[in-house]
Amino acid sequence: MNPPTIDDIRQAHDRIRDRIHRTPVITCSMLDEMSNHRLYFKCENLQGVGAFKLRGATNAIVSMNDQDARKGVCTHSSGNHAQALARAARDRGIPAWIVMPVTAPVVKRRAVEGYGATVISCEPTLQAREASAAKIVAETGATFVHPYNDPRIIAGQATAAIELFEDVGELDAVIVPIGGGGLMSGTCLAMTALSPSTRLIGVEPAGADDAARSLAAGERLPQTNPRSICDGLLTTLGELTWPVLRDHLETIMTVEDQQVITAMKLLWERAKTVVEPSGATPLAAVMSDACPLPAGSRVGLILTGGNVDLERLPWRMSG
Amino acid sequence: MNPPTIDDIRQAHDRIRDRIHRTPVITCSMLDEMSNHRLYFKCENLQGVGAFKLRGATNAIVSMNDQDARKGVCTHSSGNHAQALARAARDRGIPAWIVMPVTAPVVKRRAVEGYGATVISCEPTLQAREASAAKIVAETGATFVHPYNDPRIIAGQATAAIELFEDVGELDAVIVPIGGGGLMSGTCLAMTALSPSTRLIGVEPAGADDAARSLAAGERLPQTNPRSICDGLLTTLGELTWPVLRDHLETIMTVEDQQVITAMKLLWERAKTVVEPSGATPLAAVMSDACPLPAGSRVGLILTGGNVDLERLPWRMSG
Repeated sequence: MNPPTIDDIRQAHDRIRDRIHRTPVITCSMLDEMSNHRLYFKCENLQGVGAFKLRGATNAIVSMNDQDARKGVCTHSSGNHAQALARAARDRGIPAWIVMPVTAPVVKRRAVEGYGATVISCEPTLQAREASAAKIVAETGATFVHPYNDPRIIAGQATAAIELFEDVGELDAVIVPIGGGGLMSGTCLAMTALSPSTRLIGVEPAGADDAARSLAAGERLPQTNPRSICDGLLTTLGELTWPVLRDHLETIMTVEDQQVITAMKLLWERAKTVVEPSGATPLAAVMSDACPLPAGSRVGLILTGGNVDLERLPWRMSG
Repeated sequence: MNPPTIDDIRQAHDRIRDRIHRTPVITCSMLDEMSNHRLYFKCENLQGVGAFKLRGATNAIVSMNDQDARKGVCTHSSGNHAQALARAARDRGIPAWIVMPVTAPVVKRRAVEGYGATVISCEPTLQAREASAAKIVAETGATFVHPYNDPRIIAGQATAAIELFEDVGELDAVIVPIGGGGLMSGTCLAMTALSPSTRLIGVEPAGADDAARSLAAGERLPQTNPRSICDGLLTTLGELTWPVLRDHLETIMTVEDQQVITAMKLLWERAKTVVEPSGATPLAAVMSDACPLPAGSRVGLILTGGNVDLERLPWRMSG
């Protein structure tokens, strides 16, 4: 299995273009002033299902031949990939089985069911999730679609960077969150081809910094016992995404949850856009003292998702 | 004093066009499904200072001759008009005095000061506010700029409807919140000229329904003891705005605070856009059983503002 080429990424874009939203790139003069940069936010929180994950899931499902597609798709996820795969399967009219831990919020389970997918509950361990998914694949012949360790997924996620480049041209840097590394590796591959001088910076929660530790060690290290409000960034890098990050990234910054909360509130208050904690990490990074970019840089940031429980916000209420 | 004509409104638009944001009109398929209409949201929550009020304030200030302008402007407000006038004054480089009740949130006071305006504190009564403002006008020669009972303000607010029409063409109806009636009267005057078949519907909180009562009684009634989370809609209609509403509105719907909260959460969760309670009233109205529009209507809704205290949200936290 090899990472996608720029041609694979362009083909993915042609394939999914009419099936996803062309999300806007927004700017905010207040946040420019506060950061001392010119910031371009790619609003994947406005993507279908509220997250960039629809790009990869759609590319994976549209790429399938009819015979395989008829048998459906399967994944295990309690996050945005679950909704994205369910929605992309519905759009092609094929069945989807989504394995979710019993601890997943009811609202997420309902969202997946709302797209017509079958939800299978399991114990909240990786072993239980993988075993449940393997059983379904064996029984149904469904195709397993991994959330990030899959070239079709990476090519799909990379299309966000293509659109960002089309809309605003060359950038001094792009900053992208790293969970399993699907979006970041796709962004690396796209930007290296389109705009090789653009600096590529990853960002992780300090409490789930496997990619930063891997980059420092020169080998892929697992994420154990992650602790962060960034629920989309708790996973371990994939075998396919890791070497792409290793070979392309300038650095991986880490941000504390408190910095993420501050960035998230700024995006809500100033840009009036609802972003989930994971999606606010690039702003937290660019506003941190550790940011290596010189003042006045043109920086692209991907707001990766906007799915939050408004009754469980990660800050204290005072009223 | 007469209401503005469509020519006044067009001139206002030419005057302020380069000084304000051309806010986007967004759609949301989920909200279309839920409402059984095709909804077009004019995002004045993305306007400078986070509210449509910048339109009127900018038009008023840009319209002033140099001699008057040099002496500055004055108003009393604890809301979005205060910030808007302060910002428009800064943009022209003239002084602004803003009378705010001592009860105004510190964050709002700081925002006004952040634009370089002088804040004068007073007791939280209309009499105290008016007296403080009159004193400043007498001492400084500043021009008093009323938040809504002023043809230049009405013409400025009307430019939102002009842009909505330019972007999406004829609509079956527009729904606009009513506080003092500046935005609604401007919308009436613009739409009547541009698209006379569009139905004009106002919306008010049930706890601050002076306009609805006035329309029923055929005379302007004052708002006493308003009670609603919609802090932008608690004022009494103006002498100038009332006859415009009386002569143009089909109806004024009222919505309970609980309906407003539901609509506000839907806009945050589904459209990922941060709207304040007042700005969510049009969606509350169009989703209510009392809405007179037939299914499938093309409806324009103005999301009037997005200034909320994220630590004092009007719903219960469960986490």
